[in-house]
Amino acid sequence: MRQVTHQIQVSTHGKGLYDFTREIESWVGAQQVQTGLLNLFCRHTSASLLVQENADPDVTADLNDFFTRLVPEETRLYRHTAEGPDDMTSHIRSALTLTHLAIPIHQGELALGTWQGVYLFEHRVRPHRRSVVLHLLAD
Amino acid sequence: MRQVTHQIQVSTHGKGLYDFTREIESWVGAQQVQTGLLNLFCRHTSASLLVQENADPDVTADLNDFFTRLVPEETRLYRHTAEGPDDMTSHIRSALTLTHLAIPIHQGELALGTWQGVYLFEHRVRPHRRSVVLHLLAD
Amino acid sequence: MRQVTHQIQVSTHGKGLYDFTREIESWVGAQQVQTGLLNLFCRHTSASLLVQENADPDVTADLNDFFTRLVPEETRLYRHTAEGPDDMTSHIRSALTLTHLAIPIHQGELALGTWQGVYLFEHRVRPHRRSVVLHLLAD
Repeated sequence: MRQVTHQIQVSTHGKGLYDFTREIESWVGAQQVQTGLLNLFCRHTSASLLVQENADPDVTADLNDFFTRLVPEETRLYRHTAEGPDDMTSHIRSALTLTHLAIPIHQGELALGTWQGVYLFEHRVRPHRRSVVLHLLAD
Repeated sequence: MRQVTHQIQVSTHGKGLYDFTREIESWVGAQQVQTGLLNLFCRHTSASLLVQENADPDVTADLNDFFTRLVPEETRLYRHTAEGPDDMTSHIRSALTLTHLAIPIHQGELALGTWQGVYLFEHRVRPHRRSVVLHLLAD
Repeated sequence: MRQVTHQIQVSTHGKGLYDFTREIESWVGAQQVQTGLLNLFCRHTSASLLVQENADPDVTADLNDFFTRLVPEETRLYRHTAEGPDDMTSHIRSALTLTHLAIPIHQGELALGTWQGVYLFEHRVRPHRRSVVLHLLAD
């Protein structure tokens, strides 16, 4: 057994979910692993990770809208507002979703369900480059 | 060190939490591992995973009720409603809970706390068969 | 490759986030690992784990306040109230955050982002001692 680490950058331009399943699969594919476990770790506290439906783009739009309603950008609600109304709300949205995620690899492929994609969930309005660390455990 | 993968099916009949700790323990027990790490991955976007209190059944009923209040089944709130009022709400409830979970194995047993059980959280009304992939890393 | 397990106790005195990054780093540092994966598992259903901003203490205060608003301590909302108004709300707050977390180790250090700390999120009012199991996979 062996382990390999890697880093993927995801460029974002505003709040919402960014599918980067293909980048992940491409790197994992190049490692030629039959059985394994892929760990993903998001190195930010204002962006997070999610596995979500990848068939209908309405799903990710509805998800982002839900979080906007759940965590309102009303600065009177928060102490931490130095970077604007999307500052503290980003930390809360991150806390409600995932910083870390792992996906088993079976018969050379990520064991994702038919409708599952892996997303970077951006919570800030301005463009960012987000780092996700990949750790692969392989046979 | 070695790794083994497996798949467990959980049959559900409506929204709520389904304890499948025993199925997990039974499979892990058969692998005869002293130290290890068990990863669980839910292959769906309308069902998820949770570790919760297993002593009082009121806890899981209260949890399901909380999520019903938090994510109301009002189709006017969502674009993605093709499969009915529990369609988009299922994706949101999944996003707020876990798609993946790992539990260390210590001295041959899952390192769960005294009151912890592992649950499949079903978010759809109709019966489903849910697939959870198990990845075991063992000594 | 090898695996090591350990347990860390975090003492809490009321609701809120307790930074225990240093305890984690100290133990991992003593294992002298270059590449690896650290898994953390919280053995409770009324406390949880979070990665959050560690620069401004207002962030963790705002986070705790948000969860207090989101999961109101009104016993009429819950069946499970045997241990008081912070009983069922603790289980719900745990369900919305993390029971388990993994952080890759790269070049001998946890691959945390610049502003990321690891927190035990206490949901009960009274003091507790919380157990977090560490599982380290190392080269």
